[in-house]
Amino acid sequence: MTIPLDIDTPDILVDLDILERNIARMADTVRSKGLALRPHAKTHKIPEIAARQLAAGATGLTVATIGEAEAFAAAGVDNLFIAYPLWVSHRKAERLRRLAENATVAVGVDSAEGATMLGTGLGPAAGKVSVLVEIDSGHHRSGVRPRAAADIAKAASDAGLNVAGIFTFPGHSYAPGMSAEAAAQEQDALSLAAESLAAAGFHAAVRSGGSTPTALLTESSTATEVRPGVYVFGDAQQLELARCDLADIALTVAATVVSHHEAPAEVPERFIIDAGSKILGSDRPAWASGFGRLMDYPDARITALSEHHATVEWHGPGGRPALGDRLRIIPNHVCLAINLVDDIAVTSAGKLVDRWTVAARGRNA
Amino acid sequence: MTIPLDIDTPDILVDLDILERNIARMADTVRSKGLALRPHAKTHKIPEIAARQLAAGATGLTVATIGEAEAFAAAGVDNLFIAYPLWVSHRKAERLRRLAENATVAVGVDSAEGATMLGTGLGPAAGKVSVLVEIDSGHHRSGVRPRAAADIAKAASDAGLNVAGIFTFPGHSYAPGMSAEAAAQEQDALSLAAESLAAAGFHAAVRSGGSTPTALLTESSTATEVRPGVYVFGDAQQLELARCDLADIALTVAATVVSHHEAPAEVPERFIIDAGSKILGSDRPAWASGFGRLMDYPDARITALSEHHATVEWHGPGGRPALGDRLRIIPNHVCLAINLVDDIAVTSAGKLVDRWTVAARGRNA
Repeated sequence: MTIPLDIDTPDILVDLDILERNIARMADTVRSKGLALRPHAKTHKIPEIAARQLAAGATGLTVATIGEAEAFAAAGVDNLFIAYPLWVSHRKAERLRRLAENATVAVGVDSAEGATMLGTGLGPAAGKVSVLVEIDSGHHRSGVRPRAAADIAKAASDAGLNVAGIFTFPGHSYAPGMSAEAAAQEQDALSLAAESLAAAGFHAAVRSGGSTPTALLTESSTATEVRPGVYVFGDAQQLELARCDLADIALTVAATVVSHHEAPAEVPERFIIDAGSKILGSDRPAWASGFGRLMDYPDARITALSEHHATVEWHGPGGRPALGDRLRIIPNHVCLAINLVDDIAVTSAGKLVDRWTVAARGRNA
Repeated sequence: MTIPLDIDTPDILVDLDILERNIARMADTVRSKGLALRPHAKTHKIPEIAARQLAAGATGLTVATIGEAEAFAAAGVDNLFIAYPLWVSHRKAERLRRLAENATVAVGVDSAEGATMLGTGLGPAAGKVSVLVEIDSGHHRSGVRPRAAADIAKAASDAGLNVAGIFTFPGHSYAPGMSAEAAAQEQDALSLAAESLAAAGFHAAVRSGGSTPTALLTESSTATEVRPGVYVFGDAQQLELARCDLADIALTVAATVVSHHEAPAEVPERFIIDAGSKILGSDRPAWASGFGRLMDYPDARITALSEHHATVEWHGPGGRPALGDRLRIIPNHVCLAINLVDDIAVTSAGKLVDRWTVAARGRNA
């Protein structure tokens, strides 16, 4: 695709046709497995995309912060799960109370102290907010061990909260060859935690798992829903993890070749584009081949990244692109890229058809 | 400093007293060396900070994009250098023309093609925009070799542009023990490039260098100005490069301990805070000790970072901070952190005294 001439660089482009295909495919696959789909909206932060996910059958949205929940509630979304072990200050409790007046709201919890703080902060409104106990299924970030789930559920119940179930994020699936193992560990952890709750008299009606790398491996024998996010756009991480193809990439960063660096003899030939960490994001896992990929130069690698420059090395036939050539870059981690812009350019059949506001951008708290 | 109670986490705090001390110290030192100071405003993007830099004697601001220049021009700054080899589309040329109507504007250039594009795009307004030829002094990003400077100057002059001088960014100073070597290479490159220009009949009236690690090493024998940016705030990179002390850190991210992860026996004890890559940024050079530092726990390390979680490992006396404790985090690279928020909390003597808008946030184009 040629970048439409009415786009100046750098800018973020979303291909509407690929986006809608990605949304439909995940919705169909998850539905066919008997699971609910609650997409993580921190990936896109855009009401127009949320609306398409819900229209395709999503039961609600997942978000990471109260601020993101507020942004989507303002856009009319009425079923929100904040998949994070919030520590609820008085101000945050007040915001949650307001949110729960107009939407079905669930919140993560992974400590008795956090549950007590949440219940106390909500006061009489505690019963209007559900909690899901967060389980560590091997990512070793937040979340309790599966067999400790009942302790947290009991604390939450004692604090007046409604215990709706359990959730886990198998984030260790973000490594080459790990998706099957991470998915299996997710299933085990959800099973054990559900048993832990049952033994204490709680029913884990919601058993939520899933990341984009594992979502298609999650089974309805143990889980009830999945929460993938990145699948709507794809990114260079998913590509290098072989969880999507180039043809599935819906989001790219439009960039221009601004410099042909005349490299000293000892360094490889390279060129410089006007997209840096302030639009690509600078996530680079150790297994990634660089700081992003180039749509039309699959063999090129981004070997260095500063705020407004990316250094591209490429040894293909025909030599480097010319100064002024416009290229499409695939960010490593799309959730960070989209959080860096106020709006995105929506294209269809190579034409600019709309601009969408990243309504929940920067809503960190 | 205790985080003021009217701050919710995560949020960015700037200590006004340290900020003003950092601004005054750099201004005094640079002045005493006979150099002009043109601070890079991409670091802060905040008019109130620019105003303090200019009041302390800065001759103008450096920015990275036309959008940043527009944001500061709108705030009344009338002398701006866009230190970037712009590839100027028709739209960008129109924006530069408008900018030059109300401000003194200089732009970087590192190719004959780029100079021609700029001159042609500006048309009759070409004489109102100066160019500085970008020189590669060893960072091997953009910029030409010093002896090629005259070729670019000639192309710029032929395109009707006013050649005001040369500039370089010794970015390879961002590595342990490299600042002296990078500063020496900067001096050599500026000397050679000035000679190259002189031999072709151009006078490099402006010879601009300097990064925060090298600014104090730049000499007026070869340079006329320096362009440090990060010095206003400091960050974990400067700290680990020994270019600032803990007492110089003016910007921190307020965070809350949200989870005490019960690590399996094989992994070290850790805790989780609610500041991740969406407020800290995820730059992590290979030599950095982690993804940021903790102001009150100098021995702690941030060993993993996701969008809304940072994993902190710490083996100090007294055990981990409690759930709900509020901590101040020093981002690795402050320019990325500030670009993630709409406004920042200004504190003085531990109290919240103002909020400043990050006016040039996200102005990537």
